Amino acid sequence: VRVHIVTIGDELLIGQVIDTNSAKMAQALGDIGAQVTGRTAVGDEHSRIVAALRHALSLAQIVLVTGGLGPTKDDITKKGIAELFGVELRFDQPTYDRLEKMLSLAKRPMTDALRSQCWMPANAMILTNEMGTAPGMWFEDQGRVLVSMPGVPFELDYLMRHEVLPRLQQRFPSLPIVHHTLLTAGEGESVLAEHLKEFEEALPPNVKLAYLPAIARVRLRLTVTDEDRNRAQRILDEKFQKMRSLLPEEVVAGAGDESLENAVGKLLEQRGLTLGTAESCTGGYLAHLITSVPGSSTYFRGSIVAYDNRIKSSQLGVQERTLAEQGAVSEATVKEMIEGAIARLGVDVSVAISGIAGPSGGTTEKPVGTIWIAVGDRKRVVTRLLRANKDRLRNIQYAAFHALNQVRLFIKQS
Amino acid sequence: VRVHIVTIGDELLIGQVIDTNSAKMAQALGDIGAQVTGRTAVGDEHSRIVAALRHALSLAQIVLVTGGLGPTKDDITKKGIAELFGVELRFDQPTYDRLEKMLSLAKRPMTDALRSQCWMPANAMILTNEMGTAPGMWFEDQGRVLVSMPGVPFELDYLMRHEVLPRLQQRFPSLPIVHHTLLTAGEGESVLAEHLKEFEEALPPNVKLAYLPAIARVRLRLTVTDEDRNRAQRILDEKFQKMRSLLPEEVVAGAGDESLENAVGKLLEQRGLTLGTAESCTGGYLAHLITSVPGSSTYFRGSIVAYDNRIKSSQLGVQERTLAEQGAVSEATVKEMIEGAIARLGVDVSVAISGIAGPSGGTTEKPVGTIWIAVGDRKRVVTRLLRANKDRLRNIQYAAFHALNQVRLFIKQS
Repeated sequence: VRVHIVTIGDELLIGQVIDTNSAKMAQALGDIGAQVTGRTAVGDEHSRIVAALRHALSLAQIVLVTGGLGPTKDDITKKGIAELFGVELRFDQPTYDRLEKMLSLAKRPMTDALRSQCWMPANAMILTNEMGTAPGMWFEDQGRVLVSMPGVPFELDYLMRHEVLPRLQQRFPSLPIVHHTLLTAGEGESVLAEHLKEFEEALPPNVKLAYLPAIARVRLRLTVTDEDRNRAQRILDEKFQKMRSLLPEEVVAGAGDESLENAVGKLLEQRGLTLGTAESCTGGYLAHLITSVPGSSTYFRGSIVAYDNRIKSSQLGVQERTLAEQGAVSEATVKEMIEGAIARLGVDVSVAISGIAGPSGGTTEKPVGTIWIAVGDRKRVVTRLLRANKDRLRNIQYAAFHALNQVRLFIKQS
Repeated sequence: VRVHIVTIGDELLIGQVIDTNSAKMAQALGDIGAQVTGRTAVGDEHSRIVAALRHALSLAQIVLVTGGLGPTKDDITKKGIAELFGVELRFDQPTYDRLEKMLSLAKRPMTDALRSQCWMPANAMILTNEMGTAPGMWFEDQGRVLVSMPGVPFELDYLMRHEVLPRLQQRFPSLPIVHHTLLTAGEGESVLAEHLKEFEEALPPNVKLAYLPAIARVRLRLTVTDEDRNRAQRILDEKFQKMRSLLPEEVVAGAGDESLENAVGKLLEQRGLTLGTAESCTGGYLAHLITSVPGSSTYFRGSIVAYDNRIKSSQLGVQERTLAEQGAVSEATVKEMIEGAIARLGVDVSVAISGIAGPSGGTTEKPVGTIWIAVGDRKRVVTRLLRANKDRLRNIQYAAFHALNQVRLFIKQS
């Protein structure tokens, strides 16, 4: 079935806010076999909202509307929808009762702005929003469905997962669709495509492979559509195994929604190993990635961010002679950083990064983007030289994700 | 003048790619007084592209089209535009010559895919793209302008700045528009709005104030439109000073495009002070924020990320008794972390954070989101208790930005 998304709000049009909701919604819809075939953004302008909603209903069976709900701008979307369907707004007592209860729990007063949220187009079915004060609304008209949700990302996310997707699946039963994702790290899209060229060309039309690239990582997403869900799952399992077997073992980092940070954490936990980082040019970003995983305190002890060379000596024990003769961005320095981090942080495995993130600090010999990485334990150290070629922030991310991947490879080879 | 943006490409519809281009374009257009009043996203579907372009031209005087150009998908947009205007595609020799020269410099071969990029709708005026192989195209029709550009962000950015914006300014001379932004930190939108209520209500219709909120920060953007540019600038200067004077001195952190990271860096540089961080729950994110500023090595020495309590003791000298009796998340602990960081990192000022980022680890007494912050030098230490109420990642960001703001306030009061 075709889905059209309408986003409401000046902030999305004039560039104050980047629309991340739509991509997330489209992915979730794809998972239930519904395809986003168009998207319209309108401002807080009544006549344009009505026109955009009408146009959207002419293009798709499902129209999802986000934004334009909430205490300060609650009217705009609801008035537009009421005009679209030719109905009045009516006061919804259950919504008011729920709101009053929420407010009394939070010890916040009821205001006119909040009370106005309880007025709904008369034909609305209310979708309870456990994450905020503005509920979602479901409308049916001539075999088509229009759903309106607040634009606050986690409220929208809640409503999509708990209210909208299950109802859409029931209302528009489509061909069963199943998918699975393989997380790869360390190789680019074109190298992976080379490995998978014949596999991809031989895929039947109901099996699709998508490449979703990110810094140092590519997700491979296989989707199977089939009348019979069991058969779809069998085909998916078979193709997924096949695809996996065609890739070099070392590039396969995980599956499903797993992140590289998560995959590394799981490996460390399985092996009962602790990790610490010694960072120069990444300035703590690698430690941040690792600690963004809930429960990372089980295996992550800490980091010494030695941005200044004096800290490399005093806190990591890098010899001043090494810094003077080889430079801070050198294989010798990252090797000594490893030793220092293991000793000072008392960890089993450590990872060290030193490089030139830019925009200044580069030389002919060591241009901006020159980055040394080392991973080691008490017995061995592996090093790698990267040449990044991006701006400061992306050089930092490039270095950190590659370092994370080196940790993964190091542990697997231990 | 009204602008409508049309984005072409399945990848933007199905959620593989988040549309960051549109926000950037809208901001740039706003700076020359052109207003984005609508946006449409279509997939790689010929009839929908033609319909969307026609609809866009009916809604706005300027239509900017992005995506659907480039070696692998070059035809789709150009065929759509040719049909829209009822013209043929013609081979553009100058574009071919330029392409050939580019390729020979890069030692890359000419391919059929690249050659196909030289076919253009007959009524196109070519906009040279110094950043890639697909040029932009400018069309005029019945007093309206349609511009097509590739969707690759830095190519689009180049074409917008060097070709499109100057031409649009010339073609649609609008009222001069000037703007300036004030960066505030530490107070929310509603508190600022309270201070500025009367000021805002008394603003003349040609002066607009926008609130752009982010974690722990709000940007206030004043825009003035006036026939006379000098007068516009005078009004802006006057209102900006007035606005600034109405806000408590401590919330004003910077102006223009300046970030809080930058503002803190500038302060440190001016005072000739060095900084180091001691982080627990933020896991290096604060150090990352600080080192995301180019040139931060002038004032930032490093960080000790003491995620594990053993590191708090061994690397920061926090007493085991303090940890046992007060807990890692306590005022006493962050105070000792300050002392340890100053001593170990040899810095003038240090900042320490210890808290419970979640989702687990909370207790009744210290729920998830309890965060202690301290900032200090050799003479004094200031502490603050935060109660964040978000998910793990946003608790981390909340803690780090508030800590950064505490550093700013500490230095200003020194």
